[in-house]
Amino acid sequence: MEARYVDWLRTHARPDPRVEVGIGDDAAVLRPPAGRRTVLAVDMLSEGVDFVSAAVAPERIGHKALAVNLSDLAAMAARPEAAVVAVTLPHDGAEALAHRLFAGLEALARRHGVALVGGDTNTWQGGLVIAVTVVGSVAPGRAWRRDGARPGDLLVVTGPCGGSLLGRHLDVRPRCDEATRIAERLTVHAAIDVSDGLSLDLARLLRSSGVRGIVDLAAVPVHDDARRRSLAEDDGTTPLDHALADGEDFELILAMPPDDARALLAAPPGDLRPAIIGSVTEGEGLAARGHDGAIRPLAPRGWIHGGD
Amino acid sequence: MEARYVDWLRTHARPDPRVEVGIGDDAAVLRPPAGRRTVLAVDMLSEGVDFVSAAVAPERIGHKALAVNLSDLAAMAARPEAAVVAVTLPHDGAEALAHRLFAGLEALARRHGVALVGGDTNTWQGGLVIAVTVVGSVAPGRAWRRDGARPGDLLVVTGPCGGSLLGRHLDVRPRCDEATRIAERLTVHAAIDVSDGLSLDLARLLRSSGVRGIVDLAAVPVHDDARRRSLAEDDGTTPLDHALADGEDFELILAMPPDDARALLAAPPGDLRPAIIGSVTEGEGLAARGHDGAIRPLAPRGWIHGGD
Repeated sequence: MEARYVDWLRTHARPDPRVEVGIGDDAAVLRPPAGRRTVLAVDMLSEGVDFVSAAVAPERIGHKALAVNLSDLAAMAARPEAAVVAVTLPHDGAEALAHRLFAGLEALARRHGVALVGGDTNTWQGGLVIAVTVVGSVAPGRAWRRDGARPGDLLVVTGPCGGSLLGRHLDVRPRCDEATRIAERLTVHAAIDVSDGLSLDLARLLRSSGVRGIVDLAAVPVHDDARRRSLAEDDGTTPLDHALADGEDFELILAMPPDDARALLAAPPGDLRPAIIGSVTEGEGLAARGHDGAIRPLAPRGWIHGGD
Repeated sequence: MEARYVDWLRTHARPDPRVEVGIGDDAAVLRPPAGRRTVLAVDMLSEGVDFVSAAVAPERIGHKALAVNLSDLAAMAARPEAAVVAVTLPHDGAEALAHRLFAGLEALARRHGVALVGGDTNTWQGGLVIAVTVVGSVAPGRAWRRDGARPGDLLVVTGPCGGSLLGRHLDVRPRCDEATRIAERLTVHAAIDVSDGLSLDLARLLRSSGVRGIVDLAAVPVHDDARRRSLAEDDGTTPLDHALADGEDFELILAMPPDDARALLAAPPGDLRPAIIGSVTEGEGLAARGHDGAIRPLAPRGWIHGGD
C-alpha cells in the first residue's frame, strides 16, 4: 500500500518554495527561513486513548493529530512551516482509512500554511497509531518558554476551558495565528498549552519557572461544555472542576506583565476570549483564592499519561 | 509516567550548542546550521512487524528506531543533527521498557552526534509502537536524490546484502559518516538506502530517474548471512535471491559517473566494502545479466508495506 499512498500524497502536495525535495525521496529537504530558529514538536495519538475509531470519522482523527502539534507550536509562539506524518494502520481497510486521515490533516495544514513533506505508512494487526512531527520557526531568543514566569506577572488563559470531551478534544483549534500576533506586540514571559488540564498545565509552567501561582477561582472562564458535562446525572463535579481538570482545551496559558495582560484583554486577536485568572508571586506551587477570599493550596488535576 | 520519563530524558541530555530550548518544553528550539538546508525523515516501527518484543532486548529496538532514520539521512548525504522520539508503550512495565529503549537510542545518537531534543510518551493496551523523526542538514542543492541517475552511470552498492534477519535488521549500521565523506569528494547522481530489498529499492531509484538499470548478477555482493539463510533446510532459495530481495541491509545504492564509482572502490571510506553491480542505460525498468551473458528482465522483489 505504501507506494500507492505516497503517489497519492505526492499528487496532493502543492509546490512550495520552502521545499527543495518533497514527498517520495528518502527524506525531505527544506529551505529554513533566513535568520530564524527551527522549532520541533511531536505527538503520537493512539486508538482507545486519544480517539475511538468506531465512533469518530477518520478525517477528525487526522485533524487532531496535526492540531495538537500545532498547539505546541502556538505555545512557543512559533510559525508553522512543515510536517511529516507516520501511521500504523489496522490491516483491514488500511488504504481507505489512510486517505481519510490524510484528507483531515491536509485541510488543517492548508489553513495554517503547513507543507506536508513526508511520511511513513505501515499496517499491522493492532489499532491505529498516528504520529505527526511539526517543524516551525521563530526569531532567535523569541520562543515562549515554560520557565520564564516572574513574580508580578498576571496569568492569562486565552479562552474558556472544560468539557472538551463533548467534541472540542477532536475539533481542536490550534492558536498559532493568535499566538504569533500576540508575540508581535506584547511581552509574554512564559506559555504552555492546555492539553492535560488547566490546573495541571499551569502547575507545570509554575514549577518550570520556580514561582508560585494564585488562581482566582471566580475568574476562571468556564466553557459551556463544562456546564453541560456537569449537568449529566452521574457527573458529580462542578463546571469549575471540569474547567480546571478536563484538559484538551488547547487554549494557551500565558504569564505576562500586568500592562501587557490588560492590553491583550482590551484588544484580543481574532475571536480569542482571553481572561486574567490569577497572578504570579515568589514561592512555589499552585494556590487558589476561593469565593470567600481565602487562599488555599490547589491540587493540580488533569490527564496523566500512564500514571505519573 | 510521562513527567518522570521527561525528567529522566532531561538529566541524560547533554548541553548542545545547536539547541536553544531542549527537552521539557512544548517544543524544542534548534539553531539551524548557517547556509544549510534542513533534512527531515520519519519512520515508525511496530510490534510484530519490525520486531518481536518477547525476543529482542528493548535497547536493540531503540537502536533500530533511530538507525533506520539515520539511514534515510545517509541516503540524502545529510549530516544528522537532532531527533524527537514518540512512543506508545504497553501498560505493563512501561517505564522500564521506555528507559531501555531510550538507552539504546541514546548510545547511537551519541555516536552520530544527534541531539535528542524532545518526545512524546504514552501507554495503551496494544503493542509497542515507536516513531523517530530525525533532522539533518546538507548544503543547498547537494542532497542526493532518487531521481538523478543518468544513462552511463555505474550502479554501486556500499556493502554485501542478504540475510539481515539473522541479526543485522536490528543491529543496523547507518552509513551517515561514509555518505558525507563520499559526497565531499565524489559525484553521486542518485542514491537510495536498501531498506526493503536491493532489487526493489534499485527499481524505485530507476523509476524515479526515468532510466533503465542492468544488474550484473555475478557482481552482486552476497552477505555471509545470505549464504547461511540459504543453507537452512526449508529455505529453497539461493544466496543471491536473499541478497536481491531480503532488505533491511541499510547499505546505499549509488548511481555514479564511472570514474567516480571506480575511485570509490579504489579508496572506500571507513570499513565500507562497495561493489559495482551494474550500469544505467536509457529506457525503463530493471534487467539482469546472467551467468550466460544474456540480459533478461528482473522482477523487483522485497518487503512490501501492506501489499502495494
